[in-house]
Amino acid sequence: MPEYKAPLREINFVMKELLDSEGHYASFPGGEEATPEMVDAIIGEGAKFCEEVIAPLNQTGDQEGCTLVDGTVKTPSGFKEAYQQFVEGGWPTLSADPNFGGQGLPESVNIVISEMVGTANWSWGMYPGLSHGAVNTVNEFGSEEQKETYLTKLVTGEWTGTMCLTEPHCGSDLGILRTKAEPNADGSYSITGTKIFISAGDHDMTDNIVHIVLARLPDAPKGTKGISLFIVPKFLPENGDANSVSCGSLEHKMGIHGNATCVMNFDGAKGWLIGPENKGLNCMFTFMNTARIGTALQGVGAAEGSFQGALAYAKDRLAMRSLTGVKNPDGAADPIIVHPDVRRMLLTQKAVAEGTRAMCYFSAQQADLVHGAETEEARKAADDMLGFMTPILKAFITEVGYEAANHGMQVFGGHGFIAEWGMEQIVRDTRISLMYEGTTGIQALDLLGRKVLMTQGAALKQFTKLVHVFCKENADNEEMKQFIEPLLTLNKEWGDITMKVGMAAMKNRDEVGSASVDYLMYSGYVTMAYFWARMALIAQQKLAEGTTETGFYTAKVQTAQFYFKRMLPRTKAHAEMALAGADSVMAMDEANFAF
Amino acid sequence: MPEYKAPLREINFVMKELLDSEGHYASFPGGEEATPEMVDAIIGEGAKFCEEVIAPLNQTGDQEGCTLVDGTVKTPSGFKEAYQQFVEGGWPTLSADPNFGGQGLPESVNIVISEMVGTANWSWGMYPGLSHGAVNTVNEFGSEEQKETYLTKLVTGEWTGTMCLTEPHCGSDLGILRTKAEPNADGSYSITGTKIFISAGDHDMTDNIVHIVLARLPDAPKGTKGISLFIVPKFLPENGDANSVSCGSLEHKMGIHGNATCVMNFDGAKGWLIGPENKGLNCMFTFMNTARIGTALQGVGAAEGSFQGALAYAKDRLAMRSLTGVKNPDGAADPIIVHPDVRRMLLTQKAVAEGTRAMCYFSAQQADLVHGAETEEARKAADDMLGFMTPILKAFITEVGYEAANHGMQVFGGHGFIAEWGMEQIVRDTRISLMYEGTTGIQALDLLGRKVLMTQGAALKQFTKLVHVFCKENADNEEMKQFIEPLLTLNKEWGDITMKVGMAAMKNRDEVGSASVDYLMYSGYVTMAYFWARMALIAQQKLAEGTTETGFYTAKVQTAQFYFKRMLPRTKAHAEMALAGADSVMAMDEANFAF
Repeated sequence: MPEYKAPLREINFVMKELLDSEGHYASFPGGEEATPEMVDAIIGEGAKFCEEVIAPLNQTGDQEGCTLVDGTVKTPSGFKEAYQQFVEGGWPTLSADPNFGGQGLPESVNIVISEMVGTANWSWGMYPGLSHGAVNTVNEFGSEEQKETYLTKLVTGEWTGTMCLTEPHCGSDLGILRTKAEPNADGSYSITGTKIFISAGDHDMTDNIVHIVLARLPDAPKGTKGISLFIVPKFLPENGDANSVSCGSLEHKMGIHGNATCVMNFDGAKGWLIGPENKGLNCMFTFMNTARIGTALQGVGAAEGSFQGALAYAKDRLAMRSLTGVKNPDGAADPIIVHPDVRRMLLTQKAVAEGTRAMCYFSAQQADLVHGAETEEARKAADDMLGFMTPILKAFITEVGYEAANHGMQVFGGHGFIAEWGMEQIVRDTRISLMYEGTTGIQALDLLGRKVLMTQGAALKQFTKLVHVFCKENADNEEMKQFIEPLLTLNKEWGDITMKVGMAAMKNRDEVGSASVDYLMYSGYVTMAYFWARMALIAQQKLAEGTTETGFYTAKVQTAQFYFKRMLPRTKAHAEMALAGADSVMAMDEANFAF
Repeated sequence: MPEYKAPLREINFVMKELLDSEGHYASFPGGEEATPEMVDAIIGEGAKFCEEVIAPLNQTGDQEGCTLVDGTVKTPSGFKEAYQQFVEGGWPTLSADPNFGGQGLPESVNIVISEMVGTANWSWGMYPGLSHGAVNTVNEFGSEEQKETYLTKLVTGEWTGTMCLTEPHCGSDLGILRTKAEPNADGSYSITGTKIFISAGDHDMTDNIVHIVLARLPDAPKGTKGISLFIVPKFLPENGDANSVSCGSLEHKMGIHGNATCVMNFDGAKGWLIGPENKGLNCMFTFMNTARIGTALQGVGAAEGSFQGALAYAKDRLAMRSLTGVKNPDGAADPIIVHPDVRRMLLTQKAVAEGTRAMCYFSAQQADLVHGAETEEARKAADDMLGFMTPILKAFITEVGYEAANHGMQVFGGHGFIAEWGMEQIVRDTRISLMYEGTTGIQALDLLGRKVLMTQGAALKQFTKLVHVFCKENADNEEMKQFIEPLLTLNKEWGDITMKVGMAAMKNRDEVGSASVDYLMYSGYVTMAYFWARMALIAQQKLAEGTTETGFYTAKVQTAQFYFKRMLPRTKAHAEMALAGADSVMAMDEANFAF
């Protein structure tokens, strides 16, 4: 198993040097609480917890998995104790509402902890991670009484929460869900139905679990406009009695074995309406963005964790001699890091880990501003930016994160396939990130359809303007030409492609779905190029100023160069394929796919 | 688990219509034994065996896995019985030497059976599949006595064989292997060392297992020129005594759980030299091409099997409405095959399965001619073509096969992650194919370095000439323009890229390794484009002639169109990245990869 070392130098580079976290926190009311000293201390302590407490449980958790014993889920050895330490350390409270026991720190501090937790042990991190949806729901839509009863315990981590959306016949299409909520005389509801894929739906870490359940009231309108939210606790807070909700079985799955993926049966379970009737989906959309950045972090973590493992192996493992002459004369062969293709894989991982981290942290700052910015205008601008970035983050980062995890495995050759090394676990664990919280295809429709075309390109323009301004500002910088020129070209092409697809879509709606995934991947590569160009600029400036960290900043420029030369050309393919037209995918008669 | 249905219509299309198997078999001595009736009967029976006997053991084999009981490997339930049926059916003997009980049929018949076996149950197929190396070694280099003792039993399948190459510290770099062979007074040798990753190294299916072991004689030259081959049977044929060779442990791995991946300990085991001293690697190279086509089939099978599962699901699963209007008014939603992006994934799988099948069968015909063609010149031409195609087949097909398997899983959304559906097993099982029998990186060096640059481009020209002639022949065909024009451009560019990389490599050897994987992928896409263009031509002709199979041939043209529009543009990215220069990967100091 690769040993996890929190990449603090990289984290600090993105937070402080790229995104000026200090200035950012000083810029909005409440943000100033996140003093540089406090942020450093939190991240340092978080790193220690991740490295020492949960990383060591990653492989054992995978091997042991979860089991269902007498109707209750038993998590892998050590998970419960680690969770208790997490709660005692106050970690769940970081960015929660101070009125309910939270520390009220900005989301962009929390995301650093989430990244480290997720890289160290994604399966474990999902138990506390999945509470966020329930916390947000109760915080934003709960009555005072509901907040009183549930929120503090959720915030401290004494209880965890889930979001119960999916049913056996419906995943992406929530409009067809069937779970029923029937009113009781006492104002509560009887919830009946089956939910599947409920991560952390049951476990042995806390005394209670609070389910937020999507269900239909009697006579609710059909489709997505007839869905309401209900709080359904595992044990009733009023008397401690067990509610009629239980884990029916655990899914056997490719990865994240340490996390319990539950089939949850609601058999007339007692629940309470939260938020307005039939507006459940709207309520959920208000914080879906944050959840999706959370999932994007799985891609960052996959790239980072797999890179750490592969780099150590590539320096250690001897095979063949360098084609340009012996590099390790005392050994039987050279370490494989001398071979260009091994380096290509390592640099791809490195470029992905660092580039996607920048994308996520940038978006988390936008999330800070959505709630925190002083003016309505600034809040709206941040919300638009976040809305635009979210599908790119969720889909693009998990896709390239999965690719990076596969490269890490490949660096190990045949050994990568062996469980003991831990590299294949990263691939298995990460694979789900391309599907849950909305598949890549769903995200791509959200980006191109809802975010870009429905705003007549306004959401896109907000971002391309950022890129354009950056390019203008550095137009005279000789050393930056290698980045600015291609970036400027792509930034313009991005608009052109959008226009063309938009025009085609007016004639045929299937043009959107046909172009969407290539459009999203194109957008991802250009977005990442923007952040890599910015990081290269900072590094060049530091080198020009005579930094003592020459190696660090030189590597930063070189990784940017690698990204522009060896990854960014993929935009050529995606651009052409996005513009290939719907006919290429729609022409075939359904009956003719196979004979 | 997707139910496997042998794609007989597709197989026949490639064999008969694309590759004129009848004419091919009539063209060389001995080939005429493979009459159309016989080939049909063999493939039909093989299909039944795969569908009925081994496909049902695929998922159970994965779940049960192999266990080591009292030093012997126990294979999953049913594997042994299926193997007995396989032997009784005479399947192992198909293309083996008639002098030793084989049926002497061409390799290109055998490959069809191998594809079906591999798609139905790759793990099971490896037990008989891995015998081929041992059969070839004994057949080509064994003494009469060795052939007498081992060959017949290997050919009939009464015994199986292995190739014991890899050691814990050496995989791709066999030059540093350490296993020792010390001469005994009776002419035999004592073999001592540890071999790892020995697939089917031990099992309970046969009475004996014949290991071909790579080892060093005392005073053998260092490196690859000091390796010899030895036959080391599990039980000594002379007296039935157990030899000092045993399975020390089984690897826990990501996939192919049904196949035993053994650590084999040779503790002074009795062995016999086979072939000339110190020429072991040369001997092995003579039939490595066939083994590598065998591995390429894992990519074909992954695409085909995963496509079958995903297509069935996409027709059945209801979610959302088509963007162009309701298609399934009686259902709560439309089947997901109406959605463009689902179709894009299915068509990618279909294009890969059918295109790579054509590449493999074509190469198998070349393999027929390497041994069978009448003139030395024809044998040499076939050998050159096969040598050129082999690294492309092995690496490109497993890469795109893995991609296709991932698409299949993605079509299922979250359900794809659940073991029960069988889609994630295909991903796990296929992942190894990118690593064993030489990783993608190793194959890419073989292609660009050994095959293309070392022949001054002659090996490439042999293939581009085929493409060029085909394009010329169809230059006036209006309907073919959509394929011929891009193909001609790429075919020319292929030569240009080769020239440029070759020139750069004269100054810096690392240019080869830096460009190689992108060069290989580029080569794969162009090669597949050639076969798709040829398949489209045939289909267009059949449609013009007024075939009754309109749907089949229309789909063939449409899949070719999809391939050209939605996959082939990837060459743009690979071309640019292959020409990006070594500096992008070599510049970074090893110490600066991480801080």
